[in-house]
Amino acid sequence: MSTLPPPPDLASAKADYDALVAQGITLNLTRGKPSSEQLDLSVELLSLPGADFKAADGTDTRNYGGLRGLPELREIFAGELGVPVDQLIAAGNSSLELMHDTVVNALLSPVPGASRRWLDEPRVAFLAPVPGYDRHFTVCERLGVELVPVPITPDGPDMDVVERLVAEDASVKGIWCVPKYSNPTGAVYSDETVRRLATMPTAAPDFRIMWDNAYAVHHLTETPARIADILPLAAEAGNADRPLVFGSTSKITVAGGGVGFLGASEANLAWWLKRLEARTIGPDKVNQLRHARFLGDAAGLAAHMEKHRRLIAPKFAAVQRVLAENFADTPGVTWSEPTGGYFITLIVPDGLASEVVRLAKAAGIALTPAGATHPYGKDPQDAVIRLAPTFPPLAQVEGAIAGVAVCLRLALASSGLPVGA
Amino acid sequence: MSTLPPPPDLASAKADYDALVAQGITLNLTRGKPSSEQLDLSVELLSLPGADFKAADGTDTRNYGGLRGLPELREIFAGELGVPVDQLIAAGNSSLELMHDTVVNALLSPVPGASRRWLDEPRVAFLAPVPGYDRHFTVCERLGVELVPVPITPDGPDMDVVERLVAEDASVKGIWCVPKYSNPTGAVYSDETVRRLATMPTAAPDFRIMWDNAYAVHHLTETPARIADILPLAAEAGNADRPLVFGSTSKITVAGGGVGFLGASEANLAWWLKRLEARTIGPDKVNQLRHARFLGDAAGLAAHMEKHRRLIAPKFAAVQRVLAENFADTPGVTWSEPTGGYFITLIVPDGLASEVVRLAKAAGIALTPAGATHPYGKDPQDAVIRLAPTFPPLAQVEGAIAGVAVCLRLALASSGLPVGA
Repeated sequence: MSTLPPPPDLASAKADYDALVAQGITLNLTRGKPSSEQLDLSVELLSLPGADFKAADGTDTRNYGGLRGLPELREIFAGELGVPVDQLIAAGNSSLELMHDTVVNALLSPVPGASRRWLDEPRVAFLAPVPGYDRHFTVCERLGVELVPVPITPDGPDMDVVERLVAEDASVKGIWCVPKYSNPTGAVYSDETVRRLATMPTAAPDFRIMWDNAYAVHHLTETPARIADILPLAAEAGNADRPLVFGSTSKITVAGGGVGFLGASEANLAWWLKRLEARTIGPDKVNQLRHARFLGDAAGLAAHMEKHRRLIAPKFAAVQRVLAENFADTPGVTWSEPTGGYFITLIVPDGLASEVVRLAKAAGIALTPAGATHPYGKDPQDAVIRLAPTFPPLAQVEGAIAGVAVCLRLALASSGLPVGA
Repeated sequence: MSTLPPPPDLASAKADYDALVAQGITLNLTRGKPSSEQLDLSVELLSLPGADFKAADGTDTRNYGGLRGLPELREIFAGELGVPVDQLIAAGNSSLELMHDTVVNALLSPVPGASRRWLDEPRVAFLAPVPGYDRHFTVCERLGVELVPVPITPDGPDMDVVERLVAEDASVKGIWCVPKYSNPTGAVYSDETVRRLATMPTAAPDFRIMWDNAYAVHHLTETPARIADILPLAAEAGNADRPLVFGSTSKITVAGGGVGFLGASEANLAWWLKRLEARTIGPDKVNQLRHARFLGDAAGLAAHMEKHRRLIAPKFAAVQRVLAENFADTPGVTWSEPTGGYFITLIVPDGLASEVVRLAKAAGIALTPAGATHPYGKDPQDAVIRLAPTFPPLAQVEGAIAGVAVCLRLALASSGLPVGA
């Protein structure tokens, strides 16, 4: 800090907040949804495939079958997901359901390497890097899997903590990871983090890494982040069955009508398909063909994501600008500067996050509930606020973050903490 | 029989079979798949919805959300499935997965009316009307639910047996039903059968009817069968939570890219949605809109199914004709004459079904394995053969069933049993 913060001015902070409330706005920064303009980038998809419904190998995509999904679509995504085509499954419209069902399947039938199904274990726990993704946590909460928080750093989970916990406790069966542009901090796992995850000794022989590469191609800068490929690293270390890789086109094409992916070792896939074949006669291959035709190839995918970048990068920049203008010198207030993904994490002094969210709500600005980034909805420091700027138009993002700044300034002033800038 | 059967002539039966084998044909009557011509009826669907992606209520179908599915599509199917729109969920491309996940969910969390989850029961059993649908049985087999066979009659399951089993044994938690044009016998449940199922006393307070109305609109005659609506009947009897109704467009539009439906009481839906919301952010609403636009309304659906009827009724008629020409007077040989659905059941004298399937395979004609219509793949009488005539072109259906007749005549002759006609 180049200057000391000015003394807090409660009266002016209160006046600013009253003025904000008087505007009667309704704005929303809650969820990581693509905007209409982003969805418009894929409007061609909505008329595909038309009368040419044959896959590259001649398969009639309209009929039953093809449990692993359409090869030409898997080929487009294999590189960016770091999974060989023949180890990658293309499924339905949701990668979350693939993660959920992975836990369900592990509860009901032993995963490769397990001596028994997880239901028969006295305790099953997953490590949850925090702040993290609320829907990951909900999967575990609903299915009776305990969550153990682990701090996340800009390089990924704190690996000293992770290595200690997995080494000493065989009931720790998994870890949630969003390795690139993590939700919500934007962390990009370093090569060293990926290597340690792939190679670390675990007390549980059936330990699984839930590798949710949700933002594999969702860059915000002209220099895309690269992460190490975990499947080969794990295989080289003798832990081939450890990683389960997930991906999705939901934030690439259309959010509700995309395609989810699962990549894993052949043993894991055989285990997965054994369950899947009792459940379905095959995925929606027409939708997979639609996607393959629309994206074309990996280069087409990259070009398409560049169009997304041009639409959303200005929104992220607006949030950064407003936060910097207001809180550059405010002790205890920091925020992530992600180079990809869908979120910015705003850290406020302990105990203020829920107050900021409350003030914002009363002023018509919906924020993700404080605590949502932590297991069981409890942020022990009450310090993390997740900002999701993609969905509203740019002007609304600017209005919303300006409003959040007013709320945070009031919360700081009311608490007697210094308000910067 | 107007005439006594002629004596079996092994030599001529063998000569006919040798001639069949010599043809070197490859034909397939195994699975209930729509033909290319049937799929062509929905070719327009493959260019929809185009740039107009808004649902009737203004929802952008491309984005996340809408866990219950698109109302305008549910409206089209509510009548034929006998489920009020607000009790009907539209989901992904597979009704089988809805049935599978219903059992999974009941294993992992208590269904309404249950004192505990099914996993905590010492035994969970489902009644399986036989002959029945192999994929229903597989769901139970994979999930550890025991199957108890019950004979099916032309009016549905033998209700005297069903009522006795469910009344005396609280571990009997469910029954599989295909109430209209049953797979594979074509049975249409009588009003009395539906009433008894809806009202019968059950020892298990959490008994469920898996009401797979897969062929609700799949008529083969100009006089569509009607079945009683089970949801209101069960509700009137105080058993509102007993039925779970399933449906699908797989054999209406495109088999791989259709929409599945689940209809149930509000309590069942709340239980289901509580699990679903941890699993997905919503179904593929774009595909649901595509279907709603293509079908239009219930009348459009009926008109579309009439086109299917014109394509497949001649195939069923060909099978009937060949069977009648060959076996009208053969003791022990009977077959169903379905008025809808996808299958014909051929009953042969005890012990001959697997031999006929073996002979057919050796002659290049694939039939569904004998036993597939029974739990655990075991038909104790070895008497049931399921014929699926929809997929091959008419000429191939004629060739295949003629070949099956040759095989059956040889099996009869070899066994010393009389060969009729």
